[in-house]
Amino acid sequence: MSALPFPPAVYAARLGRARLLARDAGLDAIVVGPGPDLTYLVGVEGSTFERLTALVVPAAGDPTVVVPRMELAKVRDTAVGALGLAVADWVDGEDPYESVAAALPVAPGRVAVSDALPALHVVPIGDRLGVRLELATPVLREGRMVKDAAEVAELRRAGAAIDAVHRLVPELIRAGRTEREVGADIAAAMVEAGHRVAEFVIVASGLNGADPHHDVSDRVIEDGDLVVVDIGGPVPSGYNSDSTRTYVVGTPDPEAARRIAVLERAQQAAVDVVRPGVTAESVDAAARGVLAAEGLAEAFVHRTGHGIGVSVHEEPYIAPGSAVVLREGMAFSIEPGIYFPGRWGARIEDIVVVTANGCERLNVTPHGLTPTRG
Amino acid sequence: MSALPFPPAVYAARLGRARLLARDAGLDAIVVGPGPDLTYLVGVEGSTFERLTALVVPAAGDPTVVVPRMELAKVRDTAVGALGLAVADWVDGEDPYESVAAALPVAPGRVAVSDALPALHVVPIGDRLGVRLELATPVLREGRMVKDAAEVAELRRAGAAIDAVHRLVPELIRAGRTEREVGADIAAAMVEAGHRVAEFVIVASGLNGADPHHDVSDRVIEDGDLVVVDIGGPVPSGYNSDSTRTYVVGTPDPEAARRIAVLERAQQAAVDVVRPGVTAESVDAAARGVLAAEGLAEAFVHRTGHGIGVSVHEEPYIAPGSAVVLREGMAFSIEPGIYFPGRWGARIEDIVVVTANGCERLNVTPHGLTPTRG
Repeated sequence: MSALPFPPAVYAARLGRARLLARDAGLDAIVVGPGPDLTYLVGVEGSTFERLTALVVPAAGDPTVVVPRMELAKVRDTAVGALGLAVADWVDGEDPYESVAAALPVAPGRVAVSDALPALHVVPIGDRLGVRLELATPVLREGRMVKDAAEVAELRRAGAAIDAVHRLVPELIRAGRTEREVGADIAAAMVEAGHRVAEFVIVASGLNGADPHHDVSDRVIEDGDLVVVDIGGPVPSGYNSDSTRTYVVGTPDPEAARRIAVLERAQQAAVDVVRPGVTAESVDAAARGVLAAEGLAEAFVHRTGHGIGVSVHEEPYIAPGSAVVLREGMAFSIEPGIYFPGRWGARIEDIVVVTANGCERLNVTPHGLTPTRG
Repeated sequence: MSALPFPPAVYAARLGRARLLARDAGLDAIVVGPGPDLTYLVGVEGSTFERLTALVVPAAGDPTVVVPRMELAKVRDTAVGALGLAVADWVDGEDPYESVAAALPVAPGRVAVSDALPALHVVPIGDRLGVRLELATPVLREGRMVKDAAEVAELRRAGAAIDAVHRLVPELIRAGRTEREVGADIAAAMVEAGHRVAEFVIVASGLNGADPHHDVSDRVIEDGDLVVVDIGGPVPSGYNSDSTRTYVVGTPDPEAARRIAVLERAQQAAVDVVRPGVTAESVDAAARGVLAAEGLAEAFVHRTGHGIGVSVHEEPYIAPGSAVVLREGMAFSIEPGIYFPGRWGARIEDIVVVTANGCERLNVTPHGLTPTRG
């Protein structure tokens, strides 16, 4: 799809680290299928669902990439080729699970798989190896969770791209248009602003705003509506944007405006506590506390945020009970929301990156209730 | 995302059939995660990767849908609500795998999971139940493989939509444009023609045509180039299109033109043998035989086709060794191709549906080497 976003040495370091972490965890090997882990480790994206592509990393020994011959050229065009990794290619009719076994030590005891590997491949790998497979998530998230300077630069690029789209949104939302029409214009603007694809586009107007996972509908936007716009997707390097703003058509209901001002304070409070050494749950608690103090605890029905990188949702999750201690380079969303079923909802979301003594906000468009110009 | 494409009774019948097939296979239950199987059985699409949504179908007893509370409204808006299925909702911090166990008979012996369920959920479900999970693929493909009249109507709609795009392609390909520019125009035309999204867009010009899985690049199209255009995606009901044509800018190389005429005959030969009772491999052999007779066996490096429906690739696969016997209502691609690394490639692809005594071709734009008008 595109040139490698980082130099080969970056991938070599990531692979080496994953192997060490696997060894330290007492694993004999990890098997990484297509998905964000494979993108992170060797830059491979995509691949056919039903044909196995897998990076096999023994704790002692060199990695092997199992790949359908038809996809070999594309896989070679990544760190797999740049680092000269061993490749075991296969064609329809051959058994790729034998290739996985052959790339592993004889009779491995503990093998872990990446969490995105589908059952279609998990089950036969487990059967062939005769082991109960474990999840490689704890090993693999260590690398992905903390971003280096080049990764932060890509997240910053993604943040600027989605901010450019949010700056256009007040022109696109008008009474009389449907959510779907507005969403289509936003999707086009996202690609124009440098996204590879408009991965998700939520335009939740009026009572639809009360559903945090609404996407778009044929509902016609009306005067006085609040409209939650939550949008994001990958820039060419594969790193993602994700930002939410709440807009208003015409004059807002005064009580709604008051509550959204509280929400803005809650979001700011969470941003203010971010720095190395604090726990993820304390960031969540900061937002939750502001809302609770104003009687809005019940209206905030989800966690405060999620990590972001080559996937849109990843570690660290900013949620009650999440004891992850923040470190410099961690990147995640801060997105408290309030929801009133059958009436309206609002959410404010930025991506932040933990710095040496605080955090950098990657989304800087106005945070409060934003008037449209229609 | 959209209203249910079929009446609730259709989903009730699909669920009932899956349960019977599971029982006949000696399974105690199947657990279906997000993906085409879940869409097929209850109309649920999407859902958050890290939060479990699963349809638990015991061989004896009623199904239960495990769903994050935040996604409950959307899930209720499908056959889950229309059929009044039992729902076990959960919130962040609770353990959804306990809900899966609770929806199953006590101490189940054999449990199978849908093939798209990611390891993130497969591993904890297996651990919680203490069983080695199997794949539900053989049970679930029985229903999905044979399309009823309403499903065929949706595939026909998808075929007409992608044909409308292929009719525009000769205007879009011109010497001096990049593959990426042409691809962006095609993607917009796909949405315009009624696709929910441009799921995949391959524009493989010149030597890029020799890579069957190329997508687009910044290569500038030149006079005399062959250009393989392989495009498709879902219409609003979720059923997919997929059609490939090979275009030529200006005057083709005479030897290439001759070989592509052979390819067209190979594709037609495969279409001609399709009818109930023949095996999938004999359809593959028909295309392969024509190419082999002209010395092109080595140039045809992949299978002849794949089933299509709510996913782009599914059973039946039209490949060497595939003993599946064709039945009325099966729908699949017939897409032989020839590839000459470093030089050029060509592919011709239609979706066909097996009828009582032959097949219906869902793509009807001209099949041979098609001149552009640029």
